[in-house]
Amino acid sequence: MCELLGMSANVPTDICFSFTGLMQRGGNTGPHRDGWGIAFYEGRGCRTFHDPTPSAESEIARLVQRYAIKSRIVISHIRRANRGRVCLENTHPFSRELWGRHWVFAHNGQLRGVKRLPLGGYRPIGSTDSEHAFCWLLSRIRACFPEPPRQPARLWRHVHKLSQELSERGVCNFLLSDARHLYAHCSTQLCWLTRRAPFGQARLTDADMTVDFQQETTPHDVVTVVATRPLTDNEAWTVMRPGALTLFSAGEAVAMFSR
Amino acid sequence: MCELLGMSANVPTDICFSFTGLMQRGGNTGPHRDGWGIAFYEGRGCRTFHDPTPSAESEIARLVQRYAIKSRIVISHIRRANRGRVCLENTHPFSRELWGRHWVFAHNGQLRGVKRLPLGGYRPIGSTDSEHAFCWLLSRIRACFPEPPRQPARLWRHVHKLSQELSERGVCNFLLSDARHLYAHCSTQLCWLTRRAPFGQARLTDADMTVDFQQETTPHDVVTVVATRPLTDNEAWTVMRPGALTLFSAGEAVAMFSR
Repeated sequence: MCELLGMSANVPTDICFSFTGLMQRGGNTGPHRDGWGIAFYEGRGCRTFHDPTPSAESEIARLVQRYAIKSRIVISHIRRANRGRVCLENTHPFSRELWGRHWVFAHNGQLRGVKRLPLGGYRPIGSTDSEHAFCWLLSRIRACFPEPPRQPARLWRHVHKLSQELSERGVCNFLLSDARHLYAHCSTQLCWLTRRAPFGQARLTDADMTVDFQQETTPHDVVTVVATRPLTDNEAWTVMRPGALTLFSAGEAVAMFSR
Repeated sequence: MCELLGMSANVPTDICFSFTGLMQRGGNTGPHRDGWGIAFYEGRGCRTFHDPTPSAESEIARLVQRYAIKSRIVISHIRRANRGRVCLENTHPFSRELWGRHWVFAHNGQLRGVKRLPLGGYRPIGSTDSEHAFCWLLSRIRACFPEPPRQPARLWRHVHKLSQELSERGVCNFLLSDARHLYAHCSTQLCWLTRRAPFGQARLTDADMTVDFQQETTPHDVVTVVATRPLTDNEAWTVMRPGALTLFSAGEAVAMFSR
């Protein structure tokens, strides 16, 4: 299994605090030693860092923690390999371009027979089930919508339908973004938390670290964090329902589709 | 104008020395202050770093210099913007997937009317001529070869033909890789140098730095560096001919196509 971390915010926000907690689970407080990756959207651009070495020991992870890159949408993943060897090309998140936008995908779970699903214009570079599932997802989205639909809800419903098809093959918790929204699909385990004024203190479960968000934010900031397991032990995380796809924009949950 | 830097090597090699020279031209000894980027191939995977800030002042550039990532193919670029504003999505090198391989592209020059060229499945994310040219190039390659041709020379000839079409629109020096070969197209300015045993000393033109490659290499290492302008002042660089596309593999020039 792997662990996921996502963020949606209404102002460019750094993810240092949550990322610090997650990175501990990559070989320190957790067994996810088989690499990690993170994607930060910045305007239409996207900055990604990947490392097949354990995150708790990674030089690049330390840069990301120190450098405090600010973003409105972030997707991160730490890996415990089950299918596909430990190497750079098998390290999530994966990214592809569709409609002139960066799409980013990170997955937790195993999907039986997913490599037999036919692909359109997108092909996996590595050998994971997850990247194959992502390529299939994008191929199907492009086949249905050669151009982006005017009503985003049509796209969201289609992604939900495809997520359900994938879930029939096994565990399919994923985070996805099309540079506009953060999509969070829960098949077995995913939870979220929105921080907004009045901000309080948060204490990491996996590291001896507390942050007072009141010192770090303005009263208008709204930031949602999505994670496989709660990252803090003194805040109220919402557990997502199996089968649900939740859409986040500017820090707010804007739509939810249930099974 | 911008500056390009590429490397092809027969063993994973770090590019720290050449990169240090190039980075000085990004706001220090040169005027290329509008961002920089670098792509390192690692197996089938590819690691990229981009920063729209001047390379001479970039925290991420310092990490790349310190961290000594080893690779067989590297493509780097420092930018002086002419078309397209200074932002992450306009920062070279650009990358896309074709045939389940990472393709990476960096360009120096301006191309008139390139945005009127029709695109297939690849669309630009940013607003540069260069990214549009890259998407056109990949769309044309995929239209001609839905699957990779058995004889790579067929692909190379096709890329040369497409490069000539682009060159009719202006200045088109570029570095391209399909994860197998490094393609270097010279339209006005590009030069290269192969280092092999017996190795000697090299002295950077843009920084007070000398390296003795005999200390850093084994007798079997072969490393070619391609750059817009020579990076060292005590080695014999070969100037490429306008209109030529040169293919490098494992440090050696393996094919050349002339106008």
